[in-house]
Amino acid sequence: MIEPLAPGATIGILGGGQLGRMLSVAAARLGFRTHIFEPGVEPPASHVAHATTTAAYDDSAALAAFADAVDVITYEFENIPTGALDLLELHRPIRPNRRALAVSQDRLTEKEFLQDLGLATAPFATVHTQDDLQAALAQIGTPAILKTRRFGYDGKGQVRLNTANEPATALADLKGASAILEGFVDFTCEVSIIAARGLGGEVACFDPGENVHRDGILRSTTVPARLTTAQRTDAVLLAGKILNALDYAGVMGVELFVTATGLVVNEIAPRVHNSGHWTQNGCTIDQFEQHIRAIAGWPLGDASRYADIEMKNLIGDDIDDVLELAKETATAIHLYGKAEPRPGRKMGHVNRIIPGS
Amino acid sequence: MIEPLAPGATIGILGGGQLGRMLSVAAARLGFRTHIFEPGVEPPASHVAHATTTAAYDDSAALAAFADAVDVITYEFENIPTGALDLLELHRPIRPNRRALAVSQDRLTEKEFLQDLGLATAPFATVHTQDDLQAALAQIGTPAILKTRRFGYDGKGQVRLNTANEPATALADLKGASAILEGFVDFTCEVSIIAARGLGGEVACFDPGENVHRDGILRSTTVPARLTTAQRTDAVLLAGKILNALDYAGVMGVELFVTATGLVVNEIAPRVHNSGHWTQNGCTIDQFEQHIRAIAGWPLGDASRYADIEMKNLIGDDIDDVLELAKETATAIHLYGKAEPRPGRKMGHVNRIIPGS
Repeated sequence: MIEPLAPGATIGILGGGQLGRMLSVAAARLGFRTHIFEPGVEPPASHVAHATTTAAYDDSAALAAFADAVDVITYEFENIPTGALDLLELHRPIRPNRRALAVSQDRLTEKEFLQDLGLATAPFATVHTQDDLQAALAQIGTPAILKTRRFGYDGKGQVRLNTANEPATALADLKGASAILEGFVDFTCEVSIIAARGLGGEVACFDPGENVHRDGILRSTTVPARLTTAQRTDAVLLAGKILNALDYAGVMGVELFVTATGLVVNEIAPRVHNSGHWTQNGCTIDQFEQHIRAIAGWPLGDASRYADIEMKNLIGDDIDDVLELAKETATAIHLYGKAEPRPGRKMGHVNRIIPGS
Repeated sequence: MIEPLAPGATIGILGGGQLGRMLSVAAARLGFRTHIFEPGVEPPASHVAHATTTAAYDDSAALAAFADAVDVITYEFENIPTGALDLLELHRPIRPNRRALAVSQDRLTEKEFLQDLGLATAPFATVHTQDDLQAALAQIGTPAILKTRRFGYDGKGQVRLNTANEPATALADLKGASAILEGFVDFTCEVSIIAARGLGGEVACFDPGENVHRDGILRSTTVPARLTTAQRTDAVLLAGKILNALDYAGVMGVELFVTATGLVVNEIAPRVHNSGHWTQNGCTIDQFEQHIRAIAGWPLGDASRYADIEMKNLIGDDIDDVLELAKETATAIHLYGKAEPRPGRKMGHVNRIIPGS
């Protein structure tokens, strides 16, 4: 049994974006201090953190000093360079663990892991060369998506292939990165489940939310999702299976396709997840605090939902509407403190409580 | 019409305690940065603030630099030295305004202000000398409380007089501070109403909460308070009257005694208030965000309540129970990041959502 972290302890967070920012606030609510590690200057999380280290992930001295200044290390994104993790874990525990990161950093490893657990995924094939790609297209059919195995997010590192005749430029677009071809899944809707596992092995899941993506970016999540009771139960069980298999500690986002033949796992994210932002205004304990509780060895919080909510991301110029949004009743605004609203940039989100819920 | 503050602007907060800390988090949620001014080293608010100035309230250079670094100035406590305010307001607007501070800093001015508005207060008399005190006791009777006119909080600066025979040491205990004698009010319960007024003059009130004090310190607030509809309406109307009379911007806490003959105003606090902490888990917009919206010139948020709540302060060693509290369902923990749990020190609070509400 690992001793729970006492209030006053410091939680190190790799990555200083909006997820790190909201984790930092949640940690403070439980009396913890936070220390952000982030290469970019003045990241959003630094505005609400106790300390910030601005350094690159290959700066060994900065990494070691950061690790020594904190009690436990967590992260807001999965693409942390392996070298940095190797160094950090010599000093302090990293939670969620390395295995969760290894699985989720690589689309091939992730798919194989999920299939080994008996979970359904999109059909896929590994692609190194043009010949691989032709063979994969013949096997999987079109439309299909060629994806880099690593470092993709928000639709980046992906090329859609509508016919088998356009592979040449597709592979070139990925600039030699290791890739997989993924077949399309015929789904009725996309949902995600935000699940947490404590250091003692207990699991708590938030109610699944229904997601709408556009241009590869999440636009909205609505709870409850349109799922049958059986589908809802399936979602919880498969999330628990994944967490247990990884001996996971923390919050994980599991994206699912809802199909006529059951739930298909799209991808897993070993961290708090954009599709779980609704929990800030729909639950007593939100996903951010749940993650902090889990990695701190605290009891997991009550994940029950008390309202129906629509979470809508504010992307790019959407933030210009903020004073209009502020006039709405039962609407909570969450901004990320980013300086410039660039197209496709997540600037904030709103949680709208659905009347009568 | 004053232009609303745009996200990215900086809000200066005088005082770095738990109220400043929770204001800072609320400001960040709306995309603002915060800058704390506080004489004490490493105050709780600094853990979640963008910048902190550690300096005394008579350090003119530090005050000027602080003011120049922010867009608007607010505060978490009312006993700010006048000299500091005089200097600060040469640089930036102070909200709530000086009049609100002047009224609430001095128990005599406060009582006279309230009576001028036609509101009921406890009977009181000014006391400078032993003769004044004897005369006041003869007029008001016992039990009564001798209170310093300025700088009292959490029961400090108060002496209770149970009979007319003990005044000599009482006045000595106040060490020559200017004082008033207040008569006891025969009340059935104590409630408070957290009210907000925007820069444009609009008013929004949270539902009154019922308070329990022990040893002069607030222990719990429960919403809803046991009030009749008429009493509830009275509370809202009198709060609005006070805010309008002061041309107030921000959140104010108004403490009331509920008596057989109506509501009696105990005191007003020109700031967010301990008895409004329940709003963090009972409303979409809590008192901290409401205050930030008001002083930033934003539309006030929806103050409606969606749950019944008991807020309980964690005082001194109460914080040792935090891991037990973390196991409770529908219970939100809010800790202040203070290092040592001293007796009487507010270390945090919990908001318990009352089942079935």
